[in-house]
Amino acid sequence: MEYKQLSGRDFPRFSGVKTFFRMPYVAVDADYDVGIVGVPYDGGVSYRPGARFGPSKIREMSSLGRGYHWSRDVNILERLKVADIGDSPTVPVSQEKTYQKMGNFFNNLMSLNKRFIAIGGDHSTTLPLLRAVHKKYGKVRLIHFDAHLDTYPAAWGCEYHHGTFVRHAVDEGLIVPDKSFQVGIRGPLANKDDLDFVNKHKLNVTTVDDVRNGLNDFLNKMPDFGDEPTYISFDIDCLDPSYAPGTGTPVPGGLTTYEVQRILRALKVKNLVGADIVEVSPPYDSSDITSLAAMDTLFELLCIMSDSKINFTKG
Amino acid sequence: MEYKQLSGRDFPRFSGVKTFFRMPYVAVDADYDVGIVGVPYDGGVSYRPGARFGPSKIREMSSLGRGYHWSRDVNILERLKVADIGDSPTVPVSQEKTYQKMGNFFNNLMSLNKRFIAIGGDHSTTLPLLRAVHKKYGKVRLIHFDAHLDTYPAAWGCEYHHGTFVRHAVDEGLIVPDKSFQVGIRGPLANKDDLDFVNKHKLNVTTVDDVRNGLNDFLNKMPDFGDEPTYISFDIDCLDPSYAPGTGTPVPGGLTTYEVQRILRALKVKNLVGADIVEVSPPYDSSDITSLAAMDTLFELLCIMSDSKINFTKG
Amino acid sequence: MEYKQLSGRDFPRFSGVKTFFRMPYVAVDADYDVGIVGVPYDGGVSYRPGARFGPSKIREMSSLGRGYHWSRDVNILERLKVADIGDSPTVPVSQEKTYQKMGNFFNNLMSLNKRFIAIGGDHSTTLPLLRAVHKKYGKVRLIHFDAHLDTYPAAWGCEYHHGTFVRHAVDEGLIVPDKSFQVGIRGPLANKDDLDFVNKHKLNVTTVDDVRNGLNDFLNKMPDFGDEPTYISFDIDCLDPSYAPGTGTPVPGGLTTYEVQRILRALKVKNLVGADIVEVSPPYDSSDITSLAAMDTLFELLCIMSDSKINFTKG
Amino acid sequence: MEYKQLSGRDFPRFSGVKTFFRMPYVAVDADYDVGIVGVPYDGGVSYRPGARFGPSKIREMSSLGRGYHWSRDVNILERLKVADIGDSPTVPVSQEKTYQKMGNFFNNLMSLNKRFIAIGGDHSTTLPLLRAVHKKYGKVRLIHFDAHLDTYPAAWGCEYHHGTFVRHAVDEGLIVPDKSFQVGIRGPLANKDDLDFVNKHKLNVTTVDDVRNGLNDFLNKMPDFGDEPTYISFDIDCLDPSYAPGTGTPVPGGLTTYEVQRILRALKVKNLVGADIVEVSPPYDSSDITSLAAMDTLFELLCIMSDSKINFTKG
Amino acid sequence: MEYKQLSGRDFPRFSGVKTFFRMPYVAVDADYDVGIVGVPYDGGVSYRPGARFGPSKIREMSSLGRGYHWSRDVNILERLKVADIGDSPTVPVSQEKTYQKMGNFFNNLMSLNKRFIAIGGDHSTTLPLLRAVHKKYGKVRLIHFDAHLDTYPAAWGCEYHHGTFVRHAVDEGLIVPDKSFQVGIRGPLANKDDLDFVNKHKLNVTTVDDVRNGLNDFLNKMPDFGDEPTYISFDIDCLDPSYAPGTGTPVPGGLTTYEVQRILRALKVKNLVGADIVEVSPPYDSSDITSLAAMDTLFELLCIMSDSKINFTKG
Amino acid sequence: MEYKQLSGRDFPRFSGVKTFFRMPYVAVDADYDVGIVGVPYDGGVSYRPGARFGPSKIREMSSLGRGYHWSRDVNILERLKVADIGDSPTVPVSQEKTYQKMGNFFNNLMSLNKRFIAIGGDHSTTLPLLRAVHKKYGKVRLIHFDAHLDTYPAAWGCEYHHGTFVRHAVDEGLIVPDKSFQVGIRGPLANKDDLDFVNKHKLNVTTVDDVRNGLNDFLNKMPDFGDEPTYISFDIDCLDPSYAPGTGTPVPGGLTTYEVQRILRALKVKNLVGADIVEVSPPYDSSDITSLAAMDTLFELLCIMSDSKINFTKG
Repeated sequence: MEYKQLSGRDFPRFSGVKTFFRMPYVAVDADYDVGIVGVPYDGGVSYRPGARFGPSKIREMSSLGRGYHWSRDVNILERLKVADIGDSPTVPVSQEKTYQKMGNFFNNLMSLNKRFIAIGGDHSTTLPLLRAVHKKYGKVRLIHFDAHLDTYPAAWGCEYHHGTFVRHAVDEGLIVPDKSFQVGIRGPLANKDDLDFVNKHKLNVTTVDDVRNGLNDFLNKMPDFGDEPTYISFDIDCLDPSYAPGTGTPVPGGLTTYEVQRILRALKVKNLVGADIVEVSPPYDSSDITSLAAMDTLFELLCIMSDSKINFTKG
Repeated sequence: MEYKQLSGRDFPRFSGVKTFFRMPYVAVDADYDVGIVGVPYDGGVSYRPGARFGPSKIREMSSLGRGYHWSRDVNILERLKVADIGDSPTVPVSQEKTYQKMGNFFNNLMSLNKRFIAIGGDHSTTLPLLRAVHKKYGKVRLIHFDAHLDTYPAAWGCEYHHGTFVRHAVDEGLIVPDKSFQVGIRGPLANKDDLDFVNKHKLNVTTVDDVRNGLNDFLNKMPDFGDEPTYISFDIDCLDPSYAPGTGTPVPGGLTTYEVQRILRALKVKNLVGADIVEVSPPYDSSDITSLAAMDTLFELLCIMSDSKINFTKG
Repeated sequence: MEYKQLSGRDFPRFSGVKTFFRMPYVAVDADYDVGIVGVPYDGGVSYRPGARFGPSKIREMSSLGRGYHWSRDVNILERLKVADIGDSPTVPVSQEKTYQKMGNFFNNLMSLNKRFIAIGGDHSTTLPLLRAVHKKYGKVRLIHFDAHLDTYPAAWGCEYHHGTFVRHAVDEGLIVPDKSFQVGIRGPLANKDDLDFVNKHKLNVTTVDDVRNGLNDFLNKMPDFGDEPTYISFDIDCLDPSYAPGTGTPVPGGLTTYEVQRILRALKVKNLVGADIVEVSPPYDSSDITSLAAMDTLFELLCIMSDSKINFTKG
Repeated sequence: MEYKQLSGRDFPRFSGVKTFFRMPYVAVDADYDVGIVGVPYDGGVSYRPGARFGPSKIREMSSLGRGYHWSRDVNILERLKVADIGDSPTVPVSQEKTYQKMGNFFNNLMSLNKRFIAIGGDHSTTLPLLRAVHKKYGKVRLIHFDAHLDTYPAAWGCEYHHGTFVRHAVDEGLIVPDKSFQVGIRGPLANKDDLDFVNKHKLNVTTVDDVRNGLNDFLNKMPDFGDEPTYISFDIDCLDPSYAPGTGTPVPGGLTTYEVQRILRALKVKNLVGADIVEVSPPYDSSDITSLAAMDTLFELLCIMSDSKINFTKG
Repeated sequence: MEYKQLSGRDFPRFSGVKTFFRMPYVAVDADYDVGIVGVPYDGGVSYRPGARFGPSKIREMSSLGRGYHWSRDVNILERLKVADIGDSPTVPVSQEKTYQKMGNFFNNLMSLNKRFIAIGGDHSTTLPLLRAVHKKYGKVRLIHFDAHLDTYPAAWGCEYHHGTFVRHAVDEGLIVPDKSFQVGIRGPLANKDDLDFVNKHKLNVTTVDDVRNGLNDFLNKMPDFGDEPTYISFDIDCLDPSYAPGTGTPVPGGLTTYEVQRILRALKVKNLVGADIVEVSPPYDSSDITSLAAMDTLFELLCIMSDSKINFTKG
Repeated sequence: MEYKQLSGRDFPRFSGVKTFFRMPYVAVDADYDVGIVGVPYDGGVSYRPGARFGPSKIREMSSLGRGYHWSRDVNILERLKVADIGDSPTVPVSQEKTYQKMGNFFNNLMSLNKRFIAIGGDHSTTLPLLRAVHKKYGKVRLIHFDAHLDTYPAAWGCEYHHGTFVRHAVDEGLIVPDKSFQVGIRGPLANKDDLDFVNKHKLNVTTVDDVRNGLNDFLNKMPDFGDEPTYISFDIDCLDPSYAPGTGTPVPGGLTTYEVQRILRALKVKNLVGADIVEVSPPYDSSDITSLAAMDTLFELLCIMSDSKINFTKG
């Protein structure tokens, strides 16, 4: 099996069966390093649905993906064996069944010593991912890009909607709250007490104001995650609605794709054990720019994973 | 309280807070005859979501609604006290909780001796509506407009998705299967045995072919529902995708809006105890023509209800 | 000056400055037979605006126009000298000023012995057109395609909105009401008394039902307009919203483009002195199909005018 | 009457009859502090129409509004009694009649000692608002966000189009020109003499260049409006077209939503007597991001009004 | 290798890597009966491009495909081994190179005794397909659905644009002109002499008028193609623009999807050796209804091929 | 002949036949200074087509163009005689024929001593433009705005796709590589060796990082092009996809329209002999913001040309 991208110079990028980054579509137990995997579930959203089509559309737009990162000076498709491993089973009608099936799928993946980048799907899908990661690696450090804190309380009697995964991850002991890092956060909030959880657990929250008060300063002050097992959850709504209109609960005043690129490039992470990109809702997109931004983030995440290459061999 | 439409000649139709048909927005226990009520839930769909925005968009497009029906020669807004009674509670993340809350809401509505037209929402919301109707009226005759039979089996381990309400209604004894009537049905099917349930219970299925083999003939042969309690469930995908692109699982080769108008006008129903219009998905619509078709159907359903006026006073 | 269409086989249809039907853009007093002229005004609409962009978009889409009509067996661009004579002056903020400027423009055009097809713009622009036509030809017979009667009363204190031109044309003596012909009309109406004007003046109203009860019968029963000066006003909303989504007040249950073609081809009109196509609203269109339908109608109207060729020479 | 937002955690944000910020819809003479009111008129625009649908769409998108402002540390929905008071009467066909009806409506509102935030509608609606405000408060200081100066001359013989309100406000003595403040202005202009009025009256014009030459500097140099009666008119086209595509006359090179947030947060205004948000044209929007930006601005304006709370009691 | 559709009841239809009809993606020399193959080339179009994305989008929409055909009473996915065999190589910049690569690909396919349904791409791709088919089967009978005759002359010095394949197929002796059959044809034409070729070669042209003068009559009079090698070329623009807005050169007054279904179901073809569906242009589609219509046609074509099953074994 | 813009205050900007900047449409040999000319060809694109509609749509959006540049303090429409000279002949099916026809057209234009701004079309059209310019002026200095280097190798056996013009311009000796200037460039790249050509020829590449590390610094460090014949090729994808979604191969992390304005205003170019704006693909645009950005760039390019006025008289 050769893990090589279908070349756009041989075969035009608009042609062929669409896989993530035009990489081979393989079974979950094949010999790849990093599996890109869809999680097409959007039953947890509170406003605009559609993220169930995220994996399909990002597969399509990632036809525009290329392997060589100019400023990092690395060709990640040469350093890593990247594969499309299809979609996790999900159940549109039932979150509970979705969590069960995702649990089985990702526990298996973890047991195979694979790393993954999951393409959602809404943000309620991150919790089962973190549970599977935790089972293998123990508590991880979380890097969380989002407009929202996702520490919010239950709504309509439901604990597990798309704005709660951080709260559950802390409560279940999946992450180290005070060594985690939230980026892109901004208001408004329903109530001031929505900040209580964050304050209590000393989550490291940074806002758009923090980024805009000098980008280089911000980059320099970011924590160093070193070799500790780290997980990145990237909610596309950390971006401003002009950059990411195709999402469920957009918030004005957000980050630009350039800022996100710079932050991702400056992150000091040597052991990225898993990652996800969530909340891309294609039916609300304009000319697919949101999916394109997701593809670009996917590229950066692969680069960070390739920096962690030493860890792959350790399994 | 005066149940009068806000006039488009006094107040332009694009202005004002949007209520169904520009009728007053009142409490569920006010003294109206027919309550139009939103059911914003789309957790039961198997493909494209978005029907949760059906009530909101149909409220907007029903600004174009008027009261006088030319060929019926009746002004329904003068014959009936029509009101917008808001939306039923629903829970986006959980079908079970949605069914519970809908049950409470509609049981109460029934106990108040009101009639309703529910605006969905996906077709999984019809089952709790029929249960509430059954509680008051016993078994009803069902008139079902749809591309699909909705007698399909469970999927992904879920009994109550948007293609199953007819099966459950039969199994729970809510409707009289062999006195019911399905219109607009067409293929393809997953398997031939998808027809077993229909055959076994002698559901009266008519297809687009039946309609197109002479519309007047078709109208003449439709059953007479007389005074028996009757319920109409109108899935917008009975229409062809060119007439109703804004829906979750469109099927080519469907009905036109004109055919639907003629069928609705020819129905002999003297006791319409409830009705719904479902599966309008605004994010997939083109220039709101699907919502407009829904509005037009709402108008015809109100007319049919006004023919049943005698029953209102009976409570 | 040669009145010849820019050939699509020499110069691709997507290229070049856009004029109606790719015909020459000439001054109003040039030596053409029929001037196609834009009337970009939409201040008279009661719901969705945008018809001000009708002339511009129909110019673009009429790049797809061709001259040879297969079933009529005539190449109208060879029989008639057709030209684009630009747009009438209009004033977006003021209907009164628009009517004045249109009056000047079209009175001048009439005095030059030209015939025109006006491309609106909303239906309130037809009244000044009929006034100019009347000044030259006296009372004309009106053929009126529409979903609406356009005999409606004033609204918000305004006499001249887009639903009133027929009433004013009758009241001002511009048309012969009982020798006129309305096609495509359908409900709903605000009130039954909206029919009083029509009944009183014996307007010849035909509905979609009339067309659908046998198209050939309908065509055979249409009046013969003979040599009498006749005017055709074509409101695009006579078409069903699936065929013409790009309009301001769409009404379900309308005509198809095919039916309109058949009616236009069967009309017995030997002296078409003017015509308009109105209510195309490009911002609400889907893939420009409404403008395309308008272009097709423009083609048929040119054919009818070419049948009236003998009248041109009479001036 | 309780002025409380319908909670998104009880009742999903996509459900229910849409009112501004999900606040109660009350009569104009109810006991609220600030009335949010629609002004659905777009007859004054010179290019793309559609702003008549601004109030309706912003009602819908303000379902995403929340009350707690993080950086201001205030919950405005607790500090102020905010209400949706419906739409002002308007007349689509006639600006003159619209001005009359608006005059009556807003003079009454002023006489009731209410403050308002008007949601347009095009920018020609600001003039009657300023007239009503002036009647109560005398000359006010104007803060004007816009791409355009709006001091332009008459066009097509019309004095009151959407680019003239500042000129009229100065000429009518409604505002203090040299104590006013314009933000976001940029070219191009039709002619250099378009600057004559601005220069003559010493209007305080700041451009995008001014903002981009150091945001913090810009914020620090903004005038202090203190306790003087101040009015904010916010034309959404102050934003760049990427942030606000849904507007009539977009101009590249504009502000970002973040910059607008920072400016609004830094404004020193202790007596905001009225405000408007205009020129949102939903049919030209992409995924409703323009309406979302308007909603965000509405939130900031409410916050500024809540800082002026002391003034409410003074009436 | 099992040629079985991924079940929508196990794995939701929006999930997974997209292949035609959710069938296995296999190598060109695998043991399937019918290969569905993309031909993503649109360099031959004269107006709107975009058909290069046809294969990709139809793969996606064919997720809604099912195997059982109700009125034919056959499950084609059980009768035939259907596979997605990927896309033919194409070259966006060069038609000549595209024809070469397609020639190689399809000659190989033919030599493997496979049948195919090609998914275009524009109509200029049919010529190399017919050449490959001819190489194996000799002259075939052509059934051609289209709005256009495709016998048009060269344009801009180019012989092989998207409106010429029939002319070349006749001239190269690939088809039997007077035993072929054209459906859905309609005007306008550039010139009357565009009919010369058709008349000279006695092509069997039927128009929309022919279909509409009694559908059953039309179906009964269609030729019987018996066991003769037959090829179906389906240009989506045979459909009316309301049913197929997503195409390059739409023509009003076209067929409905229902009419196409009835025609395809009534065709007497016992030896369908190849077929194509062309001119679907996803960027111009509305809610994917054009791709959906293409998917539906693909289903019918597969059914016709399954009727020819006996021929498969002959190779 | 008077080269004067049709005034928006006399004739609304949405009305009239659309020419670039509402300037007169004249023959190529008329007495204008600068001809704006369309090049509607998109056969060279590797992903999304549609740029063939660039000239048509930019004509429409340039109705919003005005002549007075505020910060430059110049009215270019008074300083220069600007005209719309129509479109160059192109051939959609054949790049070779397009190059030939463009060669004839632009060689003629050059021989008439005209300057031009070409509106594409895809970036493969720049090469024949540079060849024509070179024929008259010899080697020119190139200023190239783009996300891509356009020095890429052949693809699918084609030398002249839309990513190669710089390589060919260098190889053919049309430009001075080490005195040229590339702006807005960013990754990713297919391979590191995609940089070999750039390095070998010492192309002056600047990236988005360079711009964002202090805009004023960047502007100050830009080369001075003095009186040397200079050509500007502006690929709209230098802008971020949020500012220019309507393009064929968008790349996240791009420039803003404001940055581009500042760069264009700061360029020291005294002899701009020709320019183009390419890769605007209207079918992929959102609310025409990409075409609007192109119009704005056209305005800046005209300003730069007006600075070169002395050169016009030299011919």
